Amino acid sequence: MTATPLYVFFRDAIVPQEKALVHVSDLAIQRGYGIFDFFKIENGHPFFLPDYLDRFYASAEVMRLKVPYDRAALTDIIYALIEKNNLPSSGIKMLLTGGYSPDGYQVVAPNLILTQQALTLPPPSQIEKGVKIITHQYVRDIPGVKTINYSMGIWLTEKIAQQNATDVLYQSAGLVSELPRSNFFIVKNDNSVWTAAGNVLRGVTRKNILGLSSHTIREGEVSLQDAYEAKEAFLTSTTKRIVPIVQIDDQVIGDGKPGAVSLGLLKELVRLEEEDVRKTAFAKK
Amino acid sequence: MTATPLYVFFRDAIVPQEKALVHVSDLAIQRGYGIFDFFKIENGHPFFLPDYLDRFYASAEVMRLKVPYDRAALTDIIYALIEKNNLPSSGIKMLLTGGYSPDGYQVVAPNLILTQQALTLPPPSQIEKGVKIITHQYVRDIPGVKTINYSMGIWLTEKIAQQNATDVLYQSAGLVSELPRSNFFIVKNDNSVWTAAGNVLRGVTRKNILGLSSHTIREGEVSLQDAYEAKEAFLTSTTKRIVPIVQIDDQVIGDGKPGAVSLGLLKELVRLEEEDVRKTAFAKK
Repeated sequence: MTATPLYVFFRDAIVPQEKALVHVSDLAIQRGYGIFDFFKIENGHPFFLPDYLDRFYASAEVMRLKVPYDRAALTDIIYALIEKNNLPSSGIKMLLTGGYSPDGYQVVAPNLILTQQALTLPPPSQIEKGVKIITHQYVRDIPGVKTINYSMGIWLTEKIAQQNATDVLYQSAGLVSELPRSNFFIVKNDNSVWTAAGNVLRGVTRKNILGLSSHTIREGEVSLQDAYEAKEAFLTSTTKRIVPIVQIDDQVIGDGKPGAVSLGLLKELVRLEEEDVRKTAFAKK
Repeated sequence: MTATPLYVFFRDAIVPQEKALVHVSDLAIQRGYGIFDFFKIENGHPFFLPDYLDRFYASAEVMRLKVPYDRAALTDIIYALIEKNNLPSSGIKMLLTGGYSPDGYQVVAPNLILTQQALTLPPPSQIEKGVKIITHQYVRDIPGVKTINYSMGIWLTEKIAQQNATDVLYQSAGLVSELPRSNFFIVKNDNSVWTAAGNVLRGVTRKNILGLSSHTIREGEVSLQDAYEAKEAFLTSTTKRIVPIVQIDDQVIGDGKPGAVSLGLLKELVRLEEEDVRKTAFAKK
C-alpha cells in the first residue's frame, strides 16, 4: 500500500487498491498455491510484454491454473490499468491464485489480480561498486515455474543481512542455479559468458542477454567453483537489469570491481529496451 | 465457504466468515509466506491443545513471525470461537501470515486468522480396506515447520489420481519422510513400529503414538526398501488418526489388508483422546 492512491485489477474489474481483498479461503492463503509474473513500464510502455505473457500462461498451465482471460483480453486489461494509474516508471504484477477452495486443498477457479507500483531501482552504488552475495544449498520446488513460494528466500534475509550481503545464490550438488528473484551469470577468463541451465526460472532479462551477439553467451552447467574463479559475475532481473557481483561468500570475484563485460552488457540491455519501445510504437501505427 | 454461516477470528475480532478478507498485499498472497496449525474439537473440547499451541508458536518463531497474542489470550480466542460457532465435530485452523508488506517481500506485523469448519473424517472403507499410496522424491523447504507451502502436494494430486492412489509419500536419497499432510509409520516383521526421524513435521498424532507403550515404537531412518518390505504401514494425522496403507507404488504391503498392529494402535489413540477430554474436564473443576 503506497501513499499514492492506486488502482488494481481484481478478479473482474479495476478497483481502488484498498478494495483488493481476497477471501481467506483462497488457496494462496491456505496453501501458498499460486503463480505470478512481473514486468516494467515506462511512459505507458510495458517492456517485452509478449515474453512475460508467454511465461505467465506457461506457469499457469504447469500448475493447472486456468487463466480466466485469453491473451487479447488480458492485454486489454493491462493497458486499461496502465492508463488508469498513469505511473510513468512502474511495474505490474500479475497474480493468479488457486481460487476460493471449498476444502482448502483442491484447485478451483483461479483469482486473477493485477497490481501496479512505482519501480524501485537498485541504488546506483550497487552498479558502481557491485554487491556481495552468499550461497545456500536449495532448489526451488518447481524451478521452471514462477510460483509464489518464496519461503526460503524470505527466510534467508536474516542470514544475508548478518553476513553483510545483499542477496543469496542457490546451489545444489556443487552446481549454482539462481537467486530468489534473479538469474546468475559469470564471465570466464576467456570472456565467454555463462548462465546456469538447470533448476532456474527462465528470466526474460536472462533470455535477452542470451540473445546478444557481442560475446559468446551460453547456458550450461556452472559450478560453485566456476563462480568463485570467475573473472566477473552478475545477477539479472526485470527491475535490476544487471547488477555486478564482486564477492561470493568469502571469495572476491576478479579484481573486486564491476567488470567491463558486465557493464558493456548492461548498456546493450538498455539499448534493447529502447528498441522494444520503438518497435511497439511502430507496430501501433 | 460452507452452507452453515460460520464465524472467523480475523486479526482482532470474531466476524462472519464472509468478512475474513485479506488485502492482496499480505505476504501469504504475495510470497506464500505464512504458517498454520490445525486441531480438532468435539463437543466444545479441543484435543491436545497445548501440543498444537506449542507447535504453532515454534513454527512462528522459526519463520520470524510474531504471534500477536500470547498463549493465554490465544486460548481465550479459541474458546470464544468454539462457543460462537457451536459446531460439535469440527476443526480449527490457526493461520499466521507475513502481514501487509509495503514492499511485498519484507515480513511485517503478521495477520492471525482462525477458521473453523466441520470435520471431514476418512471414509470407513479406508480404515477397513486400507489405501494405496505412491512415492515422490521431495523434501519440504523447511520440514520442521508447518508452513503454508503445499505447492508440491497439490501439484501431485493429478499424479495420485492417475495412479488410483489416495496420497503420496515423500522420499529422498532412499529414505522416506512424510506425506503432504500426514506422518508415515511402518510395522516390521518383529512387530516393532518405526517412523521417520528426519525431514518431517513432528505431528501431534505421531507424538501420541510414539508415547504408547504397547509396542516398541521408535523414530529413526526408514528406507524406501523398509517401507516396501514392511509387514504393515499406516499414515497418521489429526483428522485421520490412523489409516492403514496396503500398497506403496506397485508393492503390496504385508498381506494387502490392514494389519492387527495398525488397528490396535488406532484403538489406543481413541482411548488417548477420551482421556484428554476427562483430564481437561477434571482440570476445569
